[in-house]
Amino acid sequence: MILWYSRCEMSRKSKGINAERDLIHKFWGNKWAALRVAGSGSMRYPSADILATNKLRRLAIECKTAKEPWKYVEKEDIKQLKDFAELFNAEPYVAVRFNRKEWMFLTLEDLEETDKAFMINIEKAEMKGILFEELIK
Amino acid sequence: MILWYSRCEMSRKSKGINAERDLIHKFWGNKWAALRVAGSGSMRYPSADILATNKLRRLAIECKTAKEPWKYVEKEDIKQLKDFAELFNAEPYVAVRFNRKEWMFLTLEDLEETDKAFMINIEKAEMKGILFEELIK
Repeated sequence: MILWYSRCEMSRKSKGINAERDLIHKFWGNKWAALRVAGSGSMRYPSADILATNKLRRLAIECKTAKEPWKYVEKEDIKQLKDFAELFNAEPYVAVRFNRKEWMFLTLEDLEETDKAFMINIEKAEMKGILFEELIK
Repeated sequence: MILWYSRCEMSRKSKGINAERDLIHKFWGNKWAALRVAGSGSMRYPSADILATNKLRRLAIECKTAKEPWKYVEKEDIKQLKDFAELFNAEPYVAVRFNRKEWMFLTLEDLEETDKAFMINIEKAEMKGILFEELIK
């Protein structure tokens, strides 16, 4: 039982990491530099998943993948992203990838706050979010 | 045999990661922000182990621990550090921790180039290197 649970966790974690890596490659492929932050979410310090720069701009990105047409993001995640972005003088973004869709990038203002979390639904993300090509323009 | 080897690798790797984490905590404890770069050394892109900032300055740091009173650092590691620092507009440093010594921070000019690698010996490191408190001053 424990083994099964831990395998599930592993697979969810590696799926997330693969998605982040995909984004890292996109940045480098477009002449941006990008890094994945180690232990993001597990350390007690402000954090993001990715930090990217083209020397003029810096982006701090929290990555989320979603199987459902909506995604809840914990308030603590958003607070950490905001603090991290401020410290590293970067623009904070939430990158969300719904099933069979491209990455969409949302500013913190684009997120809908509920009682317990921030919510992103696919319609709003498509309306308000920008694509990678627009993000790095 | 393979298992044994892989355990050794694991332990060397986790020792390195623990040393990096120790440094991360020192930065946060001194009102700097710091992150560990994931997959540093395993990705094909310019990289460092740590990126730290106090908003005014940014430091890109490659961490090395040494059991012997000397340490060889691959030229490729230094090239990656240099490129990474340039991209992220950071000052490149090699942090080295010899057995029972504190972290010492060396600029790239402090490293001694040999045919195949850069070499740091403990005497030179103590002469030329600076301590953490001086680094963040």
